[in-house]
Amino acid sequence: MDRNSTLREGEIAVTPPAPRDAGLVFIGRIRTPWRSREETPRQGSLTGPVCRLEIFEPWVPALRGLSAFETLDVIYWLHLSRRDLVTQRRRDTPEPRGTFSLRSPVRPNPIGLSRVRLVGIEDSVVLVRGIDCVDETPLIDIKPDRCHFTPNAE
Amino acid sequence: MDRNSTLREGEIAVTPPAPRDAGLVFIGRIRTPWRSREETPRQGSLTGPVCRLEIFEPWVPALRGLSAFETLDVIYWLHLSRRDLVTQRRRDTPEPRGTFSLRSPVRPNPIGLSRVRLVGIEDSVVLVRGIDCVDETPLIDIKPDRCHFTPNAE
Repeated sequence: MDRNSTLREGEIAVTPPAPRDAGLVFIGRIRTPWRSREETPRQGSLTGPVCRLEIFEPWVPALRGLSAFETLDVIYWLHLSRRDLVTQRRRDTPEPRGTFSLRSPVRPNPIGLSRVRLVGIEDSVVLVRGIDCVDETPLIDIKPDRCHFTPNAE
Repeated sequence: MDRNSTLREGEIAVTPPAPRDAGLVFIGRIRTPWRSREETPRQGSLTGPVCRLEIFEPWVPALRGLSAFETLDVIYWLHLSRRDLVTQRRRDTPEPRGTFSLRSPVRPNPIGLSRVRLVGIEDSVVLVRGIDCVDETPLIDIKPDRCHFTPNAE
């Protein structure tokens, strides 16, 4: 885990409120080929490697009907990310930018969102392409994508 | 709040684990014209009414640079929703479906996601079209939309 307490020039860290406004339950884990953040691509590709969304009980029956969709929104918890930066500067850019204008994993609520292509479903495992997170990332939600659905996303 | 404990035919409720795997901080509140879930549209429209994302301190500086984007992903907490249904049946459909194959607000982690059009930013308030949640819904994240960005979403 790099950069957990250091700041680049122009970055602003705040003392965030305790994250107690609502609580999440991890509904599964994401298995990817990337073992560290350094290896992980910045943005997933719909032609990238097949990754596995392993769903935990008691949520497996919630997959019923998912196979009808071509693309999905996958929401996950970026468990390695600090949460205190309001401006951030990439190593290769001159200006710091506000956290909400970036898709950086560092944010007040480190929620990741990938639009992925469904490859198949095997029992409690959903196979997809387009994920860009490190192996063992906790999964928090799957939704049919409204942009590109096959049946109506109700 | 309707349907907090009743079930329709074919729906399955589970006893969910305590939601203690991670904690959220509400970064703002969403102001919309809809005072109850009954009035709220099922899906936001990019030509719908302008809604306000009111950002709380200390997060306001995180908006810097956001005005460059045309469309955003807005992530919010569906605070009125139950979390225990793994299959659900809409009133007007014959078959129950798995929660992850629906965009229903009822889900293990009641996270809502709207892709919205940016209308403007006034100090700590982001004006957008395309939201479909009830007034006073807690806000948890804003990201530039990768599908339709103006500059690169880094």
